[in-house]
Amino acid sequence: MKKMSKNLMCLCLVCLVTLVFLSFVTLAFAQDPTGAQTLKENPQAPLNYVWILVCAFLVMFMQAGFAMLEAGFCRAKNVTNLMAKNLMDLCIGSLTFFLLGYAIMMGGDWHGLWGTKGWFMLGEYYDVGKYLNMFWMLVFCATAATIVAGAVAERMKFSAYFIYSIVVSVIIYPLYGHWVWGGGWLSSLPFGMGALDFAGSGVVHAIGGFVGLAGAMVLGPRYGKYINGKPQAIPGHSIAMAALGVFILWFGWFGFNPGSTCDAYHLRISVIAVNTNLAAAAAAFSALLIAYWKTGKWDVGMALNGAVAGLVAITASCAWVEGWAAIVIGLIAGVLMYASVRFFDNRGIDDPVGAISVHGTCGLWGLLSVGLFADGTYGNYAIEKPFATGLFYGGGYEQLIAQLISIAVVFVWAFGAGYIIFKLMDKIFGIRISPEEELQGLDIPEHGTPAYPDFVQLDR
Amino acid sequence: MKKMSKNLMCLCLVCLVTLVFLSFVTLAFAQDPTGAQTLKENPQAPLNYVWILVCAFLVMFMQAGFAMLEAGFCRAKNVTNLMAKNLMDLCIGSLTFFLLGYAIMMGGDWHGLWGTKGWFMLGEYYDVGKYLNMFWMLVFCATAATIVAGAVAERMKFSAYFIYSIVVSVIIYPLYGHWVWGGGWLSSLPFGMGALDFAGSGVVHAIGGFVGLAGAMVLGPRYGKYINGKPQAIPGHSIAMAALGVFILWFGWFGFNPGSTCDAYHLRISVIAVNTNLAAAAAAFSALLIAYWKTGKWDVGMALNGAVAGLVAITASCAWVEGWAAIVIGLIAGVLMYASVRFFDNRGIDDPVGAISVHGTCGLWGLLSVGLFADGTYGNYAIEKPFATGLFYGGGYEQLIAQLISIAVVFVWAFGAGYIIFKLMDKIFGIRISPEEELQGLDIPEHGTPAYPDFVQLDR
Amino acid sequence: MKKMSKNLMCLCLVCLVTLVFLSFVTLAFAQDPTGAQTLKENPQAPLNYVWILVCAFLVMFMQAGFAMLEAGFCRAKNVTNLMAKNLMDLCIGSLTFFLLGYAIMMGGDWHGLWGTKGWFMLGEYYDVGKYLNMFWMLVFCATAATIVAGAVAERMKFSAYFIYSIVVSVIIYPLYGHWVWGGGWLSSLPFGMGALDFAGSGVVHAIGGFVGLAGAMVLGPRYGKYINGKPQAIPGHSIAMAALGVFILWFGWFGFNPGSTCDAYHLRISVIAVNTNLAAAAAAFSALLIAYWKTGKWDVGMALNGAVAGLVAITASCAWVEGWAAIVIGLIAGVLMYASVRFFDNRGIDDPVGAISVHGTCGLWGLLSVGLFADGTYGNYAIEKPFATGLFYGGGYEQLIAQLISIAVVFVWAFGAGYIIFKLMDKIFGIRISPEEELQGLDIPEHGTPAYPDFVQLDR
Repeated sequence: MKKMSKNLMCLCLVCLVTLVFLSFVTLAFAQDPTGAQTLKENPQAPLNYVWILVCAFLVMFMQAGFAMLEAGFCRAKNVTNLMAKNLMDLCIGSLTFFLLGYAIMMGGDWHGLWGTKGWFMLGEYYDVGKYLNMFWMLVFCATAATIVAGAVAERMKFSAYFIYSIVVSVIIYPLYGHWVWGGGWLSSLPFGMGALDFAGSGVVHAIGGFVGLAGAMVLGPRYGKYINGKPQAIPGHSIAMAALGVFILWFGWFGFNPGSTCDAYHLRISVIAVNTNLAAAAAAFSALLIAYWKTGKWDVGMALNGAVAGLVAITASCAWVEGWAAIVIGLIAGVLMYASVRFFDNRGIDDPVGAISVHGTCGLWGLLSVGLFADGTYGNYAIEKPFATGLFYGGGYEQLIAQLISIAVVFVWAFGAGYIIFKLMDKIFGIRISPEEELQGLDIPEHGTPAYPDFVQLDR
Repeated sequence: MKKMSKNLMCLCLVCLVTLVFLSFVTLAFAQDPTGAQTLKENPQAPLNYVWILVCAFLVMFMQAGFAMLEAGFCRAKNVTNLMAKNLMDLCIGSLTFFLLGYAIMMGGDWHGLWGTKGWFMLGEYYDVGKYLNMFWMLVFCATAATIVAGAVAERMKFSAYFIYSIVVSVIIYPLYGHWVWGGGWLSSLPFGMGALDFAGSGVVHAIGGFVGLAGAMVLGPRYGKYINGKPQAIPGHSIAMAALGVFILWFGWFGFNPGSTCDAYHLRISVIAVNTNLAAAAAAFSALLIAYWKTGKWDVGMALNGAVAGLVAITASCAWVEGWAAIVIGLIAGVLMYASVRFFDNRGIDDPVGAISVHGTCGLWGLLSVGLFADGTYGNYAIEKPFATGLFYGGGYEQLIAQLISIAVVFVWAFGAGYIIFKLMDKIFGIRISPEEELQGLDIPEHGTPAYPDFVQLDR
Repeated sequence: MKKMSKNLMCLCLVCLVTLVFLSFVTLAFAQDPTGAQTLKENPQAPLNYVWILVCAFLVMFMQAGFAMLEAGFCRAKNVTNLMAKNLMDLCIGSLTFFLLGYAIMMGGDWHGLWGTKGWFMLGEYYDVGKYLNMFWMLVFCATAATIVAGAVAERMKFSAYFIYSIVVSVIIYPLYGHWVWGGGWLSSLPFGMGALDFAGSGVVHAIGGFVGLAGAMVLGPRYGKYINGKPQAIPGHSIAMAALGVFILWFGWFGFNPGSTCDAYHLRISVIAVNTNLAAAAAAFSALLIAYWKTGKWDVGMALNGAVAGLVAITASCAWVEGWAAIVIGLIAGVLMYASVRFFDNRGIDDPVGAISVHGTCGLWGLLSVGLFADGTYGNYAIEKPFATGLFYGGGYEQLIAQLISIAVVFVWAFGAGYIIFKLMDKIFGIRISPEEELQGLDIPEHGTPAYPDFVQLDR
């Protein structure tokens, strides 16, 4: 077994080295590696570059947020493993999306299906604008990848996660991303403005959430999660860590959403920031209240996940709605998240951190909300085409239909592709850790390092 | 009791829903929801929007800093509760300030007392500039609200904190904010330039600090804090967490202070950043040294609080002073904070994290320092009016008098209003947790979730 | 002993106060404290100020990253001490670099050796541009200073660290910094473009790393690190904290490297951001793989240090290389770091967090890599002079020679000056804590505060 994963790693390394060597073959196409040409042609470029980069940095920082949130909601004996997974999906995503994923996602368009140019970012792709766009798409890719870590936590082999990371960064995220953002078929549906997803409720979060659902289903629940078929609460090892994670995510989301204008001259960025904040607040609030209603306790875990659920939900629509709508979208997201957690919990699907509900379910709600609340104003000054108007603003069912199609596609694609890859890996070499290792925690058998060697711990 | 707080929550929810529904009544005033008009009229808008938004994001991130600092200085058995409070004051503040507080603070001016326009951000308030300004004022509001959590930590009911959060976000912060920043009476005092407070030593920090004082007084000290009338040290559960909090706050303060130009074309922002940094460093340094002098130990807790004290103190004056003055302001702030902590400690006022001294006392010192050190240069190029000059720069006592009036007002208002609301709540339903719950820690009785279920803990 | 350090502190305070008073003697040279003049002369200033400041804030935030990384890799009994050191080097660096260090580094040039103007930032130095540049150089200074804390962790007296912080901020960093960035002799070597170091692989990281080496050698290994001459692993107390630290550092590095253009109109910033990210990812990846090869475990500690090693290595060359080269530089950095850690470990040099290898060794590799991979494009549009071209791009050995000279100089200077200061302090008052205090941990004897008083800890 160990030999096998050694070999797998060896293979990976060889592939990567090959790719890097291939990339030596630099071709001299039109390119602007210093930006002098771009600067001449577009005097707005500097501010836009600053805006996009700073926002991208914030999005990248969300990796810290996810790491803290996921680890906080898991047990101490698996924390080293969670850190390893969160670090590695970022690393693998960064490398493979640069080399391959970006070409598939944004390298032109072949029949609405995928891109075909820009492999290894060579030739004309050695250009400041291309690098900028690649970086922006990359930080979103890394976000999608890391969401899954939570859903499969505490029981999955590290080597399997390694391979999963490659697949999600090279295929699953870039393909759906191409369909919606890269000029693919979903963006040119004959309904409304085509499927809309401003900053990635679908492209990033629903993708991550439903690949996570596939992973959780293939893996099965953790030992001790169900006793006589009844789900047991397995509290996380640090609420403070989880809360820190949520604050970091909330902060990073201000890059995620407002940055997705990719244009600082769209002053709508202020409205987007406000909407993002309102939805998070409203969802944390409603999740806290509904949990209090049901249990009589102020359940902080639910409130924390609620905040993230609100952020996920507003992501698709943040640029197209008014503040009051952001509040409504958030309030609903908090309740929806709560119900969805209960739903999956009762159906034997063990999601240690609630990632499926937070990112999957609320990601779909976010896509839907565009078709309901879009106020028909944003973008009018930039392009001639009339902008999306939702059902509640007199836009009829046009946009809603486009959104529903997109919802169906993202679910089928993410869950389907995820299920296939996890099942395939499971058949070939088994993706679940042995029961002894699971009981002991993954930290020592997989990584040789306990997360907290100085503290006396309870056995659970 | 529990029933009562359930009902209270129910009421809150109903109110909120009503407000949201009210906000459907959108009126068509002059507004610019996409920013096209604003962009045409003001070519400097895009950079200013980017500057203000990025700084606002940093300020919002200070929520994480406060959460970590406060939790680090408290005991492990109350950490879940602190996370809940820190999350919820952000959420409640975000919602209520958007719906009501902003109108009171910045919605025009009625006899210098309060604003009257822009309820629910509707009508002409659906405008990129208004949203931007609202967002900026909101992140400050959330800061003021969260400061109090530290002073009332480890013994206050969550439901009472819930209500307090609404009051501070809708009334206490917006009113004084209006008087100083919204064109209210303090800003038009007939002395000097009127009361000045560049980034909120008074508006944000003194408000938070003295509401906290009121809360701490109404609540009384924690069980075990005083033995035979002598104050006992109750060390915090994680110095690392507290230090992380301070680093985050220091980082976020670079949004707080330089961002308060609200104009990136004021290149004075570089001086402001330097002053902010110098004051923090100087105050941490002097707090460390004075504690060493007194105790023979390098007291990190004091140094950490010292850094924040320096940041608080420089906040009012950062734009108007030279670097050397920032150092002096900081050095004094560190000593003042130390003395203030001892003062309150010896008078039976139990402030678990030192929030009253750090934010209240040093907030007042910050207001005062403007009248002493303002160098009379900043702003000359923007407006014709001569700018504030402090006593040490030959400005006489004019500005100092304005600052002293502002100091008296902020103390009376924050402490008075805070005292009334806490006392009122205490009379009606009691804001202090039962002694049994306090001994056990608030996490399990209030929230049902221990913060650190995996670790063996000492009983204290 | 205690008396002595009290006196030392007293002396420090007196010096500082004197300096501050001296600084009252403000002279009226050409200066622009509000920026009105600068704004008139340079319409690009506002965006550049925003860019540089935001990046500087990110670099400053790296202080939190170092604190978390270093503390995470050390034992719980020394965490308070590490927080104190990390806070204090920032504070002391902020004060002394403002007052003295900046003048030495950037205050003109005297025979290529050091600067002589701008003491205490007075006279013509009270200028928005000077304050901006000072701030930028300061956050780098604080980074260099804090790196050493890791190498000397768990056994050094706090008072000695105090003095070390002054020396590194006033002499060691500013002098080498002047030679490379301030117009000093290394920048005008007659080879290639002179010694190049884009964002400080040498100026910041190699300086910190080799001063750390000197400190670790003078101090000797921790008690229990070597048993019968064989190095023992002493695992850190929190992998989650270390991982958080690395994520924060990665985030902050996006200020460190792209910000070092000091010009937002260089659109090359997008390429720099991508290169920074790629090198970090590649190095974490290669460090993880080589550790797995050697030990059969997915060693997260190595992967975390690998990420930082990649960031350090790309820092010198990030603006001058293509993406594929960044990957190669990173892959090599990860392996180099691993080998270097083993090397020092086996030679009796105890570096608790691997700082010497990560910052020292990989800092040198970064300097070297410029001479190999520089692609000869960046800067062409800004100045007439042809830009650096490395060996692999047909630039011959010219640049490589300049880099090798710089490497020799940084090693000799940092290690030499560091050794002298640590040895001197050791002779005068002894820099190592007593064996009893070391066994107990530094937190209680030095600071009087345990880091985690609520948790039952193992004795190690």
